[in-house]
Amino acid sequence: MLTLYSAPATCALASHIALEQAGADYRVERVDFKSSQQRSPEYLKLNPRGRVPALVTEHGVLTETPAILLYIAQRFPEARLAPFDDPWALGQLNAFCSYLCSTVHVAHAHGRRGARWADDPAAWEAMKAKVPQTVGDGFAMIETEFFKGPWVMGERYTLADPYLYTLATWMEGDGVDPARFPKVAEHRSRMAALPAVQKVLAAEA
Amino acid sequence: MLTLYSAPATCALASHIALEQAGADYRVERVDFKSSQQRSPEYLKLNPRGRVPALVTEHGVLTETPAILLYIAQRFPEARLAPFDDPWALGQLNAFCSYLCSTVHVAHAHGRRGARWADDPAAWEAMKAKVPQTVGDGFAMIETEFFKGPWVMGERYTLADPYLYTLATWMEGDGVDPARFPKVAEHRSRMAALPAVQKVLAAEA
Repeated sequence: MLTLYSAPATCALASHIALEQAGADYRVERVDFKSSQQRSPEYLKLNPRGRVPALVTEHGVLTETPAILLYIAQRFPEARLAPFDDPWALGQLNAFCSYLCSTVHVAHAHGRRGARWADDPAAWEAMKAKVPQTVGDGFAMIETEFFKGPWVMGERYTLADPYLYTLATWMEGDGVDPARFPKVAEHRSRMAALPAVQKVLAAEA
Repeated sequence: MLTLYSAPATCALASHIALEQAGADYRVERVDFKSSQQRSPEYLKLNPRGRVPALVTEHGVLTETPAILLYIAQRFPEARLAPFDDPWALGQLNAFCSYLCSTVHVAHAHGRRGARWADDPAAWEAMKAKVPQTVGDGFAMIETEFFKGPWVMGERYTLADPYLYTLATWMEGDGVDPARFPKVAEHRSRMAALPAVQKVLAAEA
């Protein structure tokens, strides 16, 4: 049994969808961000980074979305969520996930987590003001360079799909118009219609 | 033949060391950041993200340090740079690399690349002022949580070692005292003494 520590409207959604699609035996523990449970001594013992997602396995606790997604893919190979047999294809998949976590998610975080990188409230406002541009630039790069279609990596559905879907649900909140990115927007609609995604969204609601 | 596009004092050093240690047939093309070559039309055609590293393979161009490192490890399995046969160990390795790229490297970048996230010069100064704290927090997390010893992942040397080494060489420049992190500091010294690392440092100089 795997346990995913998650919170609504966070990138943990990607891991939740992947667990569901992998057919894993799992349960979800909700971390209450409103009461800052992610900073509680109990949670910090589980994940000293104070973030979600965190996946509790029989070996220990795994953190960081790209790592959790690839772990799920490798542990449930029959779901074929990552091309472990093809170094080039796996490399491209990893590059995409790395871009999402270190560029797109980081750009998004500047809209509400400016205190991570500066102590001056005026600086937080300056960061917030640039989010539509930086997040928009990230999705422009995805639309024109990374996205192969019909799925992110091409004909084969992979863990890149729930990861892109998760970050794409944040666009409007970041002041980015999805109509600028027709491939990403169409992918988001198609993802939202998948039974596994609908089940996970209902569970998160 | 693989070609690594690199620039001195960037995270491309990690991929350079990994190529050397893997025994790869490779060459290095230096990208001149002083003349903003990474923003030239020629380079943007190669890597639209305008960053290093970029690894040119017979299949195409691969970007993002965690992806390049894992690709090198999978392509040169005899170098044993990643435990592909052990999902849990690979997961921990990926979590570490993801933490470096999305948290530690991002914290570092706020010291000189504030314009990525805000247009106000006062905000850049506010970001710069917090770098010693945020980068220090990152290395504190590595020292107490991630680092197993004698190598990052334990008894076995992996691609996590050149990646940590690379970011650890930035500490003084970020206003962080390495003496605060004895394990990381000792690892850095031991890495710097490896013949492959010395060869790469000489080539970058």
